[in-house]
Amino acid sequence: MVKPSTRVTVWNEFRHEQTNETVRNIYPNGIHDVIANYLHDKEMEVSTATLDEREHGLTDEVLNGTDVLIWWGHMAHNEVTDEVVNKVHKRVLDGMGLIVLHSGHFSKIFKKLMGTTCNLKWRDASEKERLWVVNPSHPIAAGIGDYIELEEEEMYGEFFDIPNPEEVVFTSWFTGGEVFRSGCTFTRGKGKIFYFRPGHEANPTYYNEKIMRVIANAVSWAKPSGNYAFNFGNVAPLESLR
Amino acid sequence: MVKPSTRVTVWNEFRHEQTNETVRNIYPNGIHDVIANYLHDKEMEVSTATLDEREHGLTDEVLNGTDVLIWWGHMAHNEVTDEVVNKVHKRVLDGMGLIVLHSGHFSKIFKKLMGTTCNLKWRDASEKERLWVVNPSHPIAAGIGDYIELEEEEMYGEFFDIPNPEEVVFTSWFTGGEVFRSGCTFTRGKGKIFYFRPGHEANPTYYNEKIMRVIANAVSWAKPSGNYAFNFGNVAPLESLR
Amino acid sequence: MVKPSTRVTVWNEFRHEQTNETVRNIYPNGIHDVIANYLHDKEMEVSTATLDEREHGLTDEVLNGTDVLIWWGHMAHNEVTDEVVNKVHKRVLDGMGLIVLHSGHFSKIFKKLMGTTCNLKWRDASEKERLWVVNPSHPIAAGIGDYIELEEEEMYGEFFDIPNPEEVVFTSWFTGGEVFRSGCTFTRGKGKIFYFRPGHEANPTYYNEKIMRVIANAVSWAKPSGNYAFNFGNVAPLESLR
Amino acid sequence: MVKPSTRVTVWNEFRHEQTNETVRNIYPNGIHDVIANYLHDKEMEVSTATLDEREHGLTDEVLNGTDVLIWWGHMAHNEVTDEVVNKVHKRVLDGMGLIVLHSGHFSKIFKKLMGTTCNLKWRDASEKERLWVVNPSHPIAAGIGDYIELEEEEMYGEFFDIPNPEEVVFTSWFTGGEVFRSGCTFTRGKGKIFYFRPGHEANPTYYNEKIMRVIANAVSWAKPSGNYAFNFGNVAPLESLR
Repeated sequence: MVKPSTRVTVWNEFRHEQTNETVRNIYPNGIHDVIANYLHDKEMEVSTATLDEREHGLTDEVLNGTDVLIWWGHMAHNEVTDEVVNKVHKRVLDGMGLIVLHSGHFSKIFKKLMGTTCNLKWRDASEKERLWVVNPSHPIAAGIGDYIELEEEEMYGEFFDIPNPEEVVFTSWFTGGEVFRSGCTFTRGKGKIFYFRPGHEANPTYYNEKIMRVIANAVSWAKPSGNYAFNFGNVAPLESLR
Repeated sequence: MVKPSTRVTVWNEFRHEQTNETVRNIYPNGIHDVIANYLHDKEMEVSTATLDEREHGLTDEVLNGTDVLIWWGHMAHNEVTDEVVNKVHKRVLDGMGLIVLHSGHFSKIFKKLMGTTCNLKWRDASEKERLWVVNPSHPIAAGIGDYIELEEEEMYGEFFDIPNPEEVVFTSWFTGGEVFRSGCTFTRGKGKIFYFRPGHEANPTYYNEKIMRVIANAVSWAKPSGNYAFNFGNVAPLESLR
Repeated sequence: MVKPSTRVTVWNEFRHEQTNETVRNIYPNGIHDVIANYLHDKEMEVSTATLDEREHGLTDEVLNGTDVLIWWGHMAHNEVTDEVVNKVHKRVLDGMGLIVLHSGHFSKIFKKLMGTTCNLKWRDASEKERLWVVNPSHPIAAGIGDYIELEEEEMYGEFFDIPNPEEVVFTSWFTGGEVFRSGCTFTRGKGKIFYFRPGHEANPTYYNEKIMRVIANAVSWAKPSGNYAFNFGNVAPLESLR
Repeated sequence: MVKPSTRVTVWNEFRHEQTNETVRNIYPNGIHDVIANYLHDKEMEVSTATLDEREHGLTDEVLNGTDVLIWWGHMAHNEVTDEVVNKVHKRVLDGMGLIVLHSGHFSKIFKKLMGTTCNLKWRDASEKERLWVVNPSHPIAAGIGDYIELEEEEMYGEFFDIPNPEEVVFTSWFTGGEVFRSGCTFTRGKGKIFYFRPGHEANPTYYNEKIMRVIANAVSWAKPSGNYAFNFGNVAPLESLR
């Protein structure tokens, strides 16, 4: 029997790459293209979708055929229609995994799932980030060792206004003096969610082998587990009441 | 120095009591009145608000003067305006405690804070509920002992579609064969939230001394802790970057 | 490439089966034998070990070659030597998964890993147990649906004196009026631990297909993730201190 | 009615202060004396105990009269008798709060309660520590603002081999490039435990107003909640079994 492959859709806003030369030089075909290529090489079934496609590339057919959705957005969060956000939300509650990257912390879908502002401190000054593993037995940290080091990244600092994560896998140190919970897991309905901090568009972060290993690990972790048989609503008693 | 009293607002939909004779006989002045009287006797500064008041009784002045808001709603969740829901949401993130009772699991404010459907199984058959303490060191369980027994209650059963609670204080047993996480805590922003399951309008649950003790304990637990000094947004480095 | 199989060791006290006819009739070759056969059929690499073997069957070679250890004990917890307990403890912290079954809650190894008494309420009266799934996206619950029903089991009731579990996957309802957190996960060091309540020796629980599915799921969940590269102790700074 | 005061016992190994001149100059009467004076000024009922007293100053009478025990130890962990450790352990499970400071991470009592090695990375190089609040609604963080800054401290770095804390209140940044979960809460039995990282004996950390505010907050948080009425063992059914 051939084990079915995990079906991943990499969603990218894909605007910075078209409007900013620095970003285009790093990601000429878009951030989504680099991520998709990596996961494809790991034998996942990968497709991509972007903001300016019809329905942002996230039609019912695409969403229903996605096990894990990866999300990168930044400057155009508000251009994502509520209709698509509601569909993605429904699919997550129904079991689709969701990996939210970097500036996606302010996306409509992430805020809707968290119930908080998802606000944070930030600074765009190309400083060093070191992501420490604080949960070494977690499958998302497999193969990482003590930490990941990124020479130049944007800084995100605490307090990060999210609900207390179920698990914190990474915590970042920044040159400028801040820390950040950089790898956080959540469950919503039957869906598993992983927020992963790094990935500023002006840095070549998604070419870092360890960063990509984490994303691939997270896809494996977030894929639906297959327990889909429960029900809601008015039910008859299972035992005699009197 | 006199310690300032906790300011509690008890919000009630207050419809069943006006339209259903059974309910009116149990709560002639409304569920909110019974809860408010109990808390008043515990030396809390209590006021009430109901759906049919202007702005549902939750004006800016009322909300800004509330440390902990208690919420009971059921048949008219959709009549609560989004404007008021958004104001309550903002106040919770800013530190106001929130205690959501029974059928309030389906209120707009609870669903917005949770990010999930908050769906569950249910049955209105006047069966026995026994709420077991599963976190005996928690201040919300103070004075309760092993369990609380309610001779007649509506049943709510798992799976309860909420994010994994930070703490589960009570788990209910029902005659008909179900279980339920009946006392759950969450943090959202600076606000603390407690969901407490019992309180069907057709049962005299809010006259039960232990049930009311839990609600009073929860008010003390949920009141703002006073750490209000942090900031978001673009920040200068605290350490030299080079 | 052939994916390496998970290496499971099923440890059983194996006393009731030799001294009590009721138990022997259900498990003529021991509880370990039934569990091992099931997992073997799922293409795991399974061996067994019992109390009365040399070093309780848990030599260094056996432990070092075990990815996940399953533990059933009851009447002879104190006959397990501290030396073996300390070796198992070290292996768990180093990444070996551990699945503790039923009366194993009072085993030396479980108490040492938990830091609490692991005490509970109990009753041996052959009543019904219904294990509700309260975490449907968890891989340990895959394929189970709403619940597992066991016609006759021993009762364990709350308060169960364990640290708050990282995840509660199942909560049990019992005919006699109690509830219990029946499927609980913990991490200790790099090792993952799952406690699973059912399995009274006088009931044919380990012939139940769903119970065995949970144990197989738990083995897959608990196997080492492979992040073994971190260090402790005195370290040089990674950044200039002055 | 006068509200009864919280009874705190500050336990200190009290060896560095007697053998090392640098330490003695900072804490001439011992670390315990500085902590006890601060808490006394906050109207707590405070006493102290040290290693070289009879039974380490922790007689049954002292322990039974203690609501919250504070623990500082470092060079003489192994001189604490198992008998006293077992008594403290029992008191914690029975509801006494425990605050473990700094190098107390390697104390017998903390390791016994955690079930892990409690190992970590460390460096004694007088670098800067900044403790960020990552849980601003937590009562232990009341009054702290964004962070606490300590000009000179010993470094502790991740991975810190403890069970995943129930709550992480502070995370530290260090000049040398590490991070650390510096304020962690746990529950064991009916007892609440807070581990607080800072407090190297050669730095004047316990004269820092914010550090002491955290310790005072933690005492208030950790004091017994008063739910002492539950039982273990064989129990009769609460409902008819047939």
